Amino acid sequence: MPDFSKGAAHVYGELVPVAEAKISILDWGFLHSDATYDVVHVWDGAFFRLDDHVDRFFAGMAALRMSIPHSRSELVEVLSACVAASGLREAYVEMIVTRGTPEPGSRDPRRCTNQFFAFAIPFVWVAPPGQGLHLVVTDRQRIPPASVDPTVKNYHWLDLVMGQFDAYDRGGETAAVVDADGNLTEGPGFNLFAVTGSEMRTPASGVLQGITRKTALALAAEQDLGVVEGTLSLAQVMAADEVFATSTAGGIMPITAVDGRTVGLGQMGPITRVLHDAYWALHRDPRHNTPIRY
Amino acid sequence: MPDFSKGAAHVYGELVPVAEAKISILDWGFLHSDATYDVVHVWDGAFFRLDDHVDRFFAGMAALRMSIPHSRSELVEVLSACVAASGLREAYVEMIVTRGTPEPGSRDPRRCTNQFFAFAIPFVWVAPPGQGLHLVVTDRQRIPPASVDPTVKNYHWLDLVMGQFDAYDRGGETAAVVDADGNLTEGPGFNLFAVTGSEMRTPASGVLQGITRKTALALAAEQDLGVVEGTLSLAQVMAADEVFATSTAGGIMPITAVDGRTVGLGQMGPITRVLHDAYWALHRDPRHNTPIRY
Repeated sequence: MPDFSKGAAHVYGELVPVAEAKISILDWGFLHSDATYDVVHVWDGAFFRLDDHVDRFFAGMAALRMSIPHSRSELVEVLSACVAASGLREAYVEMIVTRGTPEPGSRDPRRCTNQFFAFAIPFVWVAPPGQGLHLVVTDRQRIPPASVDPTVKNYHWLDLVMGQFDAYDRGGETAAVVDADGNLTEGPGFNLFAVTGSEMRTPASGVLQGITRKTALALAAEQDLGVVEGTLSLAQVMAADEVFATSTAGGIMPITAVDGRTVGLGQMGPITRVLHDAYWALHRDPRHNTPIRY
Repeated sequence: MPDFSKGAAHVYGELVPVAEAKISILDWGFLHSDATYDVVHVWDGAFFRLDDHVDRFFAGMAALRMSIPHSRSELVEVLSACVAASGLREAYVEMIVTRGTPEPGSRDPRRCTNQFFAFAIPFVWVAPPGQGLHLVVTDRQRIPPASVDPTVKNYHWLDLVMGQFDAYDRGGETAAVVDADGNLTEGPGFNLFAVTGSEMRTPASGVLQGITRKTALALAAEQDLGVVEGTLSLAQVMAADEVFATSTAGGIMPITAVDGRTVGLGQMGPITRVLHDAYWALHRDPRHNTPIRY
């Protein structure tokens, strides 16, 4: 019996331990980053907001003119099988479609057979639970929507990765990259929010339309916070009472320092706390919760 | 004895047939397109401009703060071994470094062990030899240098791939993508040149500093052509006598139609012909030619 305890993957139609899961070096998903993906998490044995992630995955696939030989329910079965094989009660579950490999000598993406992959690994945190992050705002620009549509979840991350190195160089733990006007966009795998008084701001465009972002916006509206989807300047972030990040990889996570300066009280602020607790409580709501059969 | 006739690859320290060459699904080279690469070609049993490609590969690696456990000469030995195993006299040889896989639960690129891969496959042509290409100038923007440094050869190609689909939709065979001002930048895997009278223009920035581009510039200077590295507008391309593409995957290749209109005589123009012939003649020059020991 293979050891799936570190995670399980579905590659080329087979279920294998994630450490053995490999894709062809010739797949344009690698050689051209010609792929889209989504990540849904499993908490306490259930997917959270599975439908939203599957919707976005199929929409991204259509935008890139790709398809998989699976229906929605078959896709969910594959994802569930990866989680069940691993036995993980808290997991990070990724579904991927790649362009595939062209015929020898061809460079025509229409002649590739798209490939579908998936894997479940132990839950990943952008920030360890309870710890505030030190964010550095870099001058790296996020790849603009005119080049690559950020609403199609993609692996074009070199701007974010190099931003992360800039942040480390400046004593930070993670990075925000900016738009052409210097406004904050997002960080490696997370959306950004700033709370000032009873107003919460987040960048409207040029960012991934994160599912956790969407959840945070809905929870804020329930709390009678004023919500502004617009631009988010460095000055607004530096003057904010609370700053936080949202990601499937960790939920709602406080940012307690920006560019070396403490934000608010230097710990999770009261509004972030309310949203954080509401976010985790929502995991028990049957509307958003899809139990796994282990 | 494995069958290397379709190509040979070096993965995780082993030489394998390219069809069996696979990389970990968890490698950030795939999941974050966090990688750089280079492609050198082999013609008539010898590498062409090997040193230039190896220089660029090492420079890109340094820019991304990556390293490989090989010296230059060891790298060349691996590349040669891939070609020799395949027996190919004309080959497309790719060397790749990826960020690697983080420790479980970590998202810190500094804690990844970079991975080195290489493969040799039969020579690939952007355009079949002798045939002119129909180029469509799309309104997709090339990822700007403020986001991802185009001089570090990278796999961020979704702009180019989606541009290619736009081109197919409009009856073309390949695409040019533009900068924020609408000037042409490059196409999927090639640089662009336009010749008008005795002046040759090519985009100066926001493009890969291609080795074939560099060769074309040097050959043009020898021919007493006026060379302008600047911007290249759609109007300039539409009014040009000759348009051509340069790539390691095919050398100097005529573009004989742009946006459905014939360029010049609708076949390889006289200046393109001179540069094309000089390019292939240069392959016999011992300064640029590194024979493979099969």
